[in-house]
Parts: sequence; C-alpha cells; structure tokens
Amino acid sequence: MEELIQKARSVKKASIKLQSVSTVQKNEALLQIGAALKRKEDAILKANKMDVKEARDKGIRDSLIDRLALNQKRIDDMIQSCHRVAGLKDPVGEVIASWVQSDGLRISKVRVPIGAIGIIYESRPNVTVEASILALKTGNSILLRGGSDAFHSNMAIVKAIKEGLSRSSLPVESIEIVESTDRKLVEQMLKLREYLSLIVPRGSNRLIQYVVENSSIPVLETGVGNCHIFVDDSADLEKALEIVDNAKTQRPGTCNAVETLLVHQSIAAAFLPMMADRLSKKGVEIRGCSQTQKFIKVKPATDSDWETEFLDLILAVRVVNSLDEAIAHIQKYSSGHSEAILTENYFNAKKFVENIDAAAVYVNASTRFTDGGQFGFGGEIGISTQRLHARGPVGLEGLTTYKYVILGDYNVRR
Amino acid sequence: MEELIQKARSVKKASIKLQSVSTVQKNEALLQIGAALKRKEDAILKANKMDVKEARDKGIRDSLIDRLALNQKRIDDMIQSCHRVAGLKDPVGEVIASWVQSDGLRISKVRVPIGAIGIIYESRPNVTVEASILALKTGNSILLRGGSDAFHSNMAIVKAIKEGLSRSSLPVESIEIVESTDRKLVEQMLKLREYLSLIVPRGSNRLIQYVVENSSIPVLETGVGNCHIFVDDSADLEKALEIVDNAKTQRPGTCNAVETLLVHQSIAAAFLPMMADRLSKKGVEIRGCSQTQKFIKVKPATDSDWETEFLDLILAVRVVNSLDEAIAHIQKYSSGHSEAILTENYFNAKKFVENIDAAAVYVNASTRFTDGGQFGFGGEIGISTQRLHARGPVGLEGLTTYKYVILGDYNVRR
Repeated sequence: MEELIQKARSVKKASIKLQSVSTVQKNEALLQIGAALKRKEDAILKANKMDVKEARDKGIRDSLIDRLALNQKRIDDMIQSCHRVAGLKDPVGEVIASWVQSDGLRISKVRVPIGAIGIIYESRPNVTVEASILALKTGNSILLRGGSDAFHSNMAIVKAIKEGLSRSSLPVESIEIVESTDRKLVEQMLKLREYLSLIVPRGSNRLIQYVVENSSIPVLETGVGNCHIFVDDSADLEKALEIVDNAKTQRPGTCNAVETLLVHQSIAAAFLPMMADRLSKKGVEIRGCSQTQKFIKVKPATDSDWETEFLDLILAVRVVNSLDEAIAHIQKYSSGHSEAILTENYFNAKKFVENIDAAAVYVNASTRFTDGGQFGFGGEIGISTQRLHARGPVGLEGLTTYKYVILGDYNVRR
Repeated sequence: MEELIQKARSVKKASIKLQSVSTVQKNEALLQIGAALKRKEDAILKANKMDVKEARDKGIRDSLIDRLALNQKRIDDMIQSCHRVAGLKDPVGEVIASWVQSDGLRISKVRVPIGAIGIIYESRPNVTVEASILALKTGNSILLRGGSDAFHSNMAIVKAIKEGLSRSSLPVESIEIVESTDRKLVEQMLKLREYLSLIVPRGSNRLIQYVVENSSIPVLETGVGNCHIFVDDSADLEKALEIVDNAKTQRPGTCNAVETLLVHQSIAAAFLPMMADRLSKKGVEIRGCSQTQKFIKVKPATDSDWETEFLDLILAVRVVNSLDEAIAHIQKYSSGHSEAILTENYFNAKKFVENIDAAAVYVNASTRFTDGGQFGFGGEIGISTQRLHARGPVGLEGLTTYKYVILGDYNVRR
C-alpha cells in the first residue's frame, strides 16, 4: 500500500510537469526509450525467460505463455512502436474551437493531457511498452500494474524505459510500475482519485468488469462485441456472402467479427444454402433458428447463442420476417459494438442507421472495419464500448481532455 | 427495489424509441409539458404546501425551505424554461466529423443521445423540471430520484410532465420518478449499469462525493471551485481591483467566485491597501499570510484557508515572490475549476496558461465568467470538475455521445 501511494504521488507530480512539455521533447523521449530497450535487450530476454519458466512450472496454458514470451523479434516490434508513435501527430495543443463573446472575451477550447493514468493489465509485456509510449505521446504519466506472471519482464522493461527517460528532458517518474503483486493492491489502486484521473483496464472481460464495478476513478471501458449483420431482401447475394465470410472468418477471435447473421425470409431460400456451403468449407459451425433449419441442415441455435460473443468459427443464424424484426433483435442482443445492414433500399438503410444504437453502424460493409487503423487514427488505445468520453475505436485523442483558455482585457461580469 | 428496477427498465425502453425522434417532436413535447404544468398549477402548489409544512414541522432551516417552496412565479419560471429549452439548438444529429477512406468507405461521427440517464438530487422541485426537459431536448430518457422533503411536489410535477408527454409523440415512460424514499435505493440505483448510461448528482458536495465513490455507472461530476487570482507586477492596479472585487463580491456563493488572491511582492505595498479598503467596504473579511499582514491589518490566514471554498464574503490573501511561486501555490491548492492571472507581460501570461491545469484558465478577466450562459452555450447542465467526457461549463452537448456511421459499397477488410 505504501509503495502504491508513493508511486501514485510520483506520477501525479510528473503529470504536472508533463502539462507543458513540447512535442519535440516527447518524441525525443520516445526515441530514447526505443534505444534503451535495444541496449537492455539481453537483460529483458533473461528476465522474460524466468517468467516463462515459472509460468510453465505453474502449468499455465500454452496460449497464455505465447502472449508472455518475448524474443528478439518481439523486442524489435516494441522498438518499432516507439518510432511509430513518435511519428504520430500530437493531439495536445489543438484548438478544438475558439470564439469571441460580445464583450470581447476570446474563449478557446484547447486539447490538453488527461494527467496521471493508471493501467491494469494481464501478463503481456508488450502492453508495458505500448501503454507507456501512448501515454507519454499525449503528455500523460502512467502508473502500471501488470500481471504477476510477467513480473520479471515488466521490471526489466520499465528499468529500460526509465533509463531512456533519464536521457530525455521528461521526468523519470512519468512511468512507474507497482512492484508488489498483492492482488489487494488493484482494489486500492481503483480508489486513488486524488492522484489518478483515469483507469484503463486491458485484458479479459472479467478484469474489465471488475474494474468498472469497483473503480471510483473514471474508467475507459473496452469490451464485448456481439456483432450482427442483417441481409435485407434487396441485397446482392454474392456480395453479401463476401461480407459475411469476411466478417466471420478473416479473424474470428476479434471483437469486431460477426457473431449473429440475420436473414430476411424472402431471400432465405436462396441465400442460406450458398452461405452454409461457403462457410462450412472454411470450418464455420452454423447454429440456426427453427426457420433456418428449414433451408439448411444445421445445429439448432439456443437462446444463449443470441447473446454470445463466440470469438470463434461459430455463427448463429436467424431468419426474420422484416427489417423491424431484425432491428428489434439487434436492439435486444447488441453489445453496442458494430452492427451492419446489407441492403440496396435507401429507406431501409436510413431506418437501420437511425434506430441502431452502436459505436459503429454499417451500411454495406464488413463489421471488421471497426478499428483505429482502419478508421485512419494511427494509434489505437482500444475499442470503447462505453458511451461517455470516447466511443468506438479510440485514437490518441481518447487520452486527452480539454481546458478553456479565456483571454480578456480586464473584463468583469455584469 | 422492485419499483426501481421496473422504472429503470421503463426509461431504458423509452430511450431506444427516443434515439430516432425528430427535433420537432421533442420541441412539441416540451411545449406540451409547459402547458400541462400550467393546467396542474393548483395541484402542484397544493402538494408543495404539504412538503413545506412537513419540512417546517421537522425543523428544517429556512434557507432549505426557501429552495423547496414554490409559488406562482416559480411555476411560471418552470414553464418559461420549457419554452426556452424548446428554442435551443438541438445538438443531436450533428455530424462532428466525416471523411472518406482510401477504399471508399465514408465514415461519419454523428452526435446521438446518451440513452437513459439517472439523476439524484436534493429537495429542489425546479430541478425535476429542468433535468427532465434538458434530457428530453437531447433525446435522453431520465430516471429521477429527488430528495424526500420534496416528495409531494415532485410527484405532482412528474404527473404533469407525463400528462404533457401523453399529448406528444414521445413515450410517457421517457420520464420516471422513484417514489420510494428509502435511502438504500440510491445505492442500488448506482449499480444499474444494465439500464442507465450516466448518473448526474445535483446538490451538496457530500452527495456528489457519495455518488462518485459508489457508482459503477459513469458520473457527470460537478464540484468544488477553489479559484485563485494572481495579480502580477505588471498589472494595472485599478483594473485589477475591479476584477478582484467582481470575482469576490458579485455572487460570493457561486463556485466560480475567487477564494484566494495571490499578489506579487513588488506591488503588494501599493495594491494591498487599496484592495483592503475597497473590499472591506463591501463586507469582505480578509485573511492574510504573514507578508500580507505587513501591509494591511487583517486576520492571519491558516493553512486550511488555502484549501477552503468559502462560498462567502471571505478572501484569503498571500504575497508571492514570483510568478513561479504563484503557479506552485495554485498547482498545490487548485480544485481545477477557474484560475486567473492579471498581467500585461506576454511571457508571464503564456507561462501561466501553459502551466495551470484547470477547466478555465483566464488572462485579465474575472473568474465569474465560467458559466454556460456566459460562454454562449444556451442551456447549462452544470460545471464539470472532472476531466473526462465534459470539462468546465457543460452545455446540451454534455448530454450526448456519438456513433460512427459507415457507408460502403459492399466493402470487405483485406
């Protein structure tokens, strides 16, 4: 607890200095961090070997060990990230709006850093670098709390980051990591409103929900994508099939992959067999409603399938009688991430866009586009499923706030 | 609890319908609510009399009874508010940004309602109307939880609002009020993430802190304004005095009033006596640091004075040796609301603006301007002292979020 408070105080203090550093200073620090990671490569790999060995001894499963393990290529990727983020446009200082009131006051809304940010994440050492450099680029300090399985790796990485910072003009205390692996510290960290202005949880949905429910600090919530595609009766069926295939199979483990397909009944007889044929060849398991089962031979879908984010080669399929029925289904089951209609009917497209409330609403495109890179944001903090502050793909702007700067001529209020 | 859940479900359902209503429909509903308040005026005044009597019997102090009591004039003000808000520009539907990606996708960031909002407030019946109409104007439904002392008034007002809604095309369930006055319900309400997307506490700092610390729903936090003015050595002393007087005495009970005055030592001998003379004539009590006491006869300031929002005719005064010392004092004690420098030195103005992190940073103007009306926002939800989502004076936009609408030509992700 004492370590936690002391480090929270450190990053808070650093955040005040960071308010007024220039883009050049921040970019130089990022490049110094990249160089330090290179110099400390051996030490980082050695520390990581200890983590991997301990994880293997504990019987942790291979997929998690794969996320934990580092090699020269992965450290090179981290260094590349430092260079890439240094090359991104700095959002801080942007004048979002500016106007003059009738009494001559010039009011400007100026983008500024959020301050000190806390990040709670699981055992992926690359997040240690990524979170740190995105925070620094936007003028924020950061208090890291990583998964205990990556303890040695994280300590070695943060040591390198701090060495890089010490060769820059930014405070070394801009990045701190909680060393204690006591799980109670997470709960305590979520109450440090005096020092931290934002908490970002990165990892499983369970971790995110824990943070959202227990934090008294505002949270940047990323989460579940239970995404739908509705194929309307006017859609071009060949092109619709391309999109469904893309949205399901291109990367099924991502939050923007489609999970439920809704098909208008008047095209079900034509569309479902060609869809089943194409997707089953790609190994997709289809689970259909009773109507769907009349057209193709599939496993029956249960109620819970409609609310499940499979993150796998599984697709729930339902035949609907109308656009209204499709909208009602989505309104009931949507997690508010990405929803699509495939249609050539102007009024149906308009109605869908107006009635579906999700971070990204698509007409005639794959849900897979919901991504900071695809949206042209450069960096991506994550995909927000909350409604406040930032929604959908979050670029660097999501790590900023604004202040009003008011320039007067000795104005008083009448 | 059952009532709470049922009403939360009602407003959530209404919020889905409200997503797609037009500005004309919303404005008509606001005017219908105004008309219904007029028709139900007698019933509202009668209910209010019961509340006032019960409050008197309980020995509640006069200033609170004044906030609770209604009369014809105050009901007229409510009706006027309905007309005024109907006349405001509707932020919903605004295209915040729109661009075309190289693959032809048109991406638009469109302003939409937040959804279902919960508001927790103390015994001011006018808040019942004000919160309801601001929510409706921005396409949000609202679940009200008012102070128990205003119970009868609130029930009568909500009955009128719902009668107005029933004559409009908006769902009657857009506005619901929790009838149970069990205090435990507030705690339960703060956990209803499934239904409510935002909680707005209105009232004492104690209520707001309770909500912030216990809510798992995002909170729009308004709060303490411990505002400073620094009089630099280059300031015009006569004009500086006008501003200090205005910021302290025009309305001392507001969060944007100045609480601590910082004076550069090289002008202290000239400025402090004229300041003390002018302000003491207006009944202001001055509490000065040891340096201040060398120039004027005042009560000594204690450490706690530097951190107090007096909301009263009290001003703490400190002499500083430099701009840096002034900035350090403000960084230490500021509540992040409104901070001002009075100076004619370009570099000092620039340094102050860059280093002071507050919702509103002033050069040569009174802190009293931090206000939605003064900023030209029309309506005002409150003045946010949090850093996320909305900061400083919050206009109608603060009750909206955005979604991305993506129009394609059967695009798939490569």
